[in-house]
Amino acid sequence: MDSALSTSAAASPMTAAGRLLAVLDAFSPGRRVLTLSEISRKAGLSLTTAHRLAGELVTWGALERDSDGRYRIGLHLLELAALAPRGLELRELAQPFLEDLFHSTRAHVHLAVRDGYEVVYVETLRARGAVSVLSRLGQRWPLHATGTGLALLAHADRDLQEKVLSSPLKRFTPKTVTDPRVLRRTLAEVRRTGIAVAEEQLTLDGVAIAAPIRGRGDEVVAAIGLVVHVDECEPRALVPVITACARGISRTLGAPSAKGTPGAIKGS
Amino acid sequence: MDSALSTSAAASPMTAAGRLLAVLDAFSPGRRVLTLSEISRKAGLSLTTAHRLAGELVTWGALERDSDGRYRIGLHLLELAALAPRGLELRELAQPFLEDLFHSTRAHVHLAVRDGYEVVYVETLRARGAVSVLSRLGQRWPLHATGTGLALLAHADRDLQEKVLSSPLKRFTPKTVTDPRVLRRTLAEVRRTGIAVAEEQLTLDGVAIAAPIRGRGDEVVAAIGLVVHVDECEPRALVPVITACARGISRTLGAPSAKGTPGAIKGS
Repeated sequence: MDSALSTSAAASPMTAAGRLLAVLDAFSPGRRVLTLSEISRKAGLSLTTAHRLAGELVTWGALERDSDGRYRIGLHLLELAALAPRGLELRELAQPFLEDLFHSTRAHVHLAVRDGYEVVYVETLRARGAVSVLSRLGQRWPLHATGTGLALLAHADRDLQEKVLSSPLKRFTPKTVTDPRVLRRTLAEVRRTGIAVAEEQLTLDGVAIAAPIRGRGDEVVAAIGLVVHVDECEPRALVPVITACARGISRTLGAPSAKGTPGAIKGS
Repeated sequence: MDSALSTSAAASPMTAAGRLLAVLDAFSPGRRVLTLSEISRKAGLSLTTAHRLAGELVTWGALERDSDGRYRIGLHLLELAALAPRGLELRELAQPFLEDLFHSTRAHVHLAVRDGYEVVYVETLRARGAVSVLSRLGQRWPLHATGTGLALLAHADRDLQEKVLSSPLKRFTPKTVTDPRVLRRTLAEVRRTGIAVAEEQLTLDGVAIAAPIRGRGDEVVAAIGLVVHVDECEPRALVPVITACARGISRTLGAPSAKGTPGAIKGS
């Protein structure tokens, strides 16, 4: 399930499949509408090949063509993406808890999973008038600079942790932790407390607080996060609500550690 | 942008691109996790070809392989689907209004667009303990049997309306309108009132109420819908809130007809 350390592990452009996928990869958050010549250039394909493959993707529904002849991502990809068990299926199970968290805190709410060395947001609820955030549904960020990323990294395999700790840690703000020794201590603290706090790591003014979500085998499968303005809120005040919410989602997923009835005391 | 009247217009299975896309199309809401031989059978490909193509899709991130060797849809498709202007981008703009609608009504909330002869849900907010609904994010339903579908069909090109009216109208419940003359009157009523009501058309017990959302050119680009239990609520009582919400989203999209300041009277 882990991809390479790079952002996107493209299939070989030499195969027919690789050429088709390169057409899709020409699209990005900053390039949502492309002409045929832009697709051809970004994908490294001749105009003729790009035209033929884009045509097949339009027929299939992965691309749409507007009245100006430009291409954009189509709805059939959403239909397929909705089938991803770790994506929109997880989102659907978690949704009532995310709503509760959103309306009890009025902060930005994230649901994220780890994909290789990155965190991918599978749900984002945006609070109006709150601190600005970079994360968008479907987008990827490095694990070390986000609250949900830290919660996921702290509970990942030791091998994966070591690979992240030994790779260059990208700096986003003057406060981003880029020293592996500091990051190692942070991860131990996340495991000890069950909560990750990322203060101004990805954007100045933003504090992220996150908690892990566990699955049927009690393994960490996702993380839930809140982002608030650094001056607006003491992040520690949000620990009880985010813990309760993470437990609720874990219980829905069948996690054994989240199954105790609240208030029940086992044993004598 | 319109696909054929069939549910999915597959690319030719004879081309290399068509074979790759057939592997993805082997997955469906009822078949989210597949073995290689299931993929091979559903896609009509040899085991060798299915293995090679599934491998390329795993490398690219469109598929993931679990520890049992079974395949499922991966997160890279969500990343791409998030770039669809009519999908998750629209959802992001509409989200605050959908939240308001959800919390003021406690009903199921849908945001949908038309894709060919079907309605596709690009956002679904589920109310706990409310009437059961079939619609899921990314799923497709016929236009004539859903509230959002009726709102979209009533404002579609006349040609498209005639094609739907002259095609067989699938029955989902004993109350589903399958007589094209009745459907024609319903569509005229939707245009006259600005509201679509679908009572027990897709499921018994469910009433859907929907309103169109307009874009920059004042054309209908999407629809917003609520689903409530038939005994729970007088659908007409929901008209003001859904109208206000549809206007808010239309204004955010730049629709000229939704730009007037509330209460302002132009001219003398």
